[in-house]
Amino acid sequence: PVLDVTDPGAGQPAARWAEDADLRMDVPRYRVYEQGELVDEPTDLRCWWRDDLVTFLLGCSFTFERALAAAGVPVRHLECGCNVPMYRANRQCHPAGQFHGALVVSMRPIPGDLVSRAVQVTSRYPAVHGAPVHIGDPSALGIRDLARPDYGDAVDVRPGEVPVFWACGVTPQSVALASRVPLMITHAPGHMFVTDRRDEELAVG
Amino acid sequence: PVLDVTDPGAGQPAARWAEDADLRMDVPRYRVYEQGELVDEPTDLRCWWRDDLVTFLLGCSFTFERALAAAGVPVRHLECGCNVPMYRANRQCHPAGQFHGALVVSMRPIPGDLVSRAVQVTSRYPAVHGAPVHIGDPSALGIRDLARPDYGDAVDVRPGEVPVFWACGVTPQSVALASRVPLMITHAPGHMFVTDRRDEELAVG
Repeated sequence: PVLDVTDPGAGQPAARWAEDADLRMDVPRYRVYEQGELVDEPTDLRCWWRDDLVTFLLGCSFTFERALAAAGVPVRHLECGCNVPMYRANRQCHPAGQFHGALVVSMRPIPGDLVSRAVQVTSRYPAVHGAPVHIGDPSALGIRDLARPDYGDAVDVRPGEVPVFWACGVTPQSVALASRVPLMITHAPGHMFVTDRRDEELAVG
Repeated sequence: PVLDVTDPGAGQPAARWAEDADLRMDVPRYRVYEQGELVDEPTDLRCWWRDDLVTFLLGCSFTFERALAAAGVPVRHLECGCNVPMYRANRQCHPAGQFHGALVVSMRPIPGDLVSRAVQVTSRYPAVHGAPVHIGDPSALGIRDLARPDYGDAVDVRPGEVPVFWACGVTPQSVALASRVPLMITHAPGHMFVTDRRDEELAVG
């Protein structure tokens, strides 16, 4: 979900997200797409910046991972010290104007006894993608091999664990590829903008 | 969960559950166990009744099935016109005095995209077993073959569907077998006492 939209050229998120932030420098790594092709992965956007650029802040499922751990739900990619595995699903987002493309999902393997808990915990965080969009069958999402994610790093799915899929903020990169817009800049997978808000402040109920 | 406990010999549930009910006659079918062995399946308990018998009303997962359907989650055994499949799991209940035995679970196959919804909907009904106790892997519960339930009728699990397991009110029958109490009377699977309360009255939040 969209958390914030800046004025053209501003590059400043609303103060409720961060004081004195600059979205042209404060994301740890960017991806720049021209005509849907990746052309650069800078750590600073000032050489790419234009006064007509509008930035969108989207929620990220990383926000609810502390809550999952606090509820006793293990988070494999944190245990492994790697990035979460992400996959382009065979689900088209609702098109909007010239924008269209596939949903990207993140996957966390969860022991079968804890899947209910994982749904309950993440349902409290709708602004950062909320409850899983799919549980159980990678092939239902068009994912042929969990060991080969489209973004991030592969993690094991062990016996008794269920692959659980959440919507992912990398989705705009899939949209950039499909929509072939002249210029689109996103965060690199796993390199998100970190706000001043505490995870729990994004929770409802 | 326990909804009500009657006084010894009374056989009358609290008025909040039903007016003028008689638990010795109003359950459509009973099972009578002596020393842990099934000895009768009567439709009327008056020939078995004793003045020292205490009755317990437990919630039943059937209560949340209307809510599941209203949320767009299909319920296979209702579509098939059969009883829900039930299995003795390899999970021991917390023992209490001389009572001990395995948890019995009911299983509903849910399309992977709707498992989150099923957890959210049933989480609202904690008094009738609430959220699933396990999602995904029958073998993790010690269930070798979903096609051979211990109680009720088998249903198909189709491609893209996930077997979802809820705690089941048939658990006392498993306890009766294991605890070998002199006399224990339960409802027959699928033959529950129906109260005057509407399903939605059991919901929270």
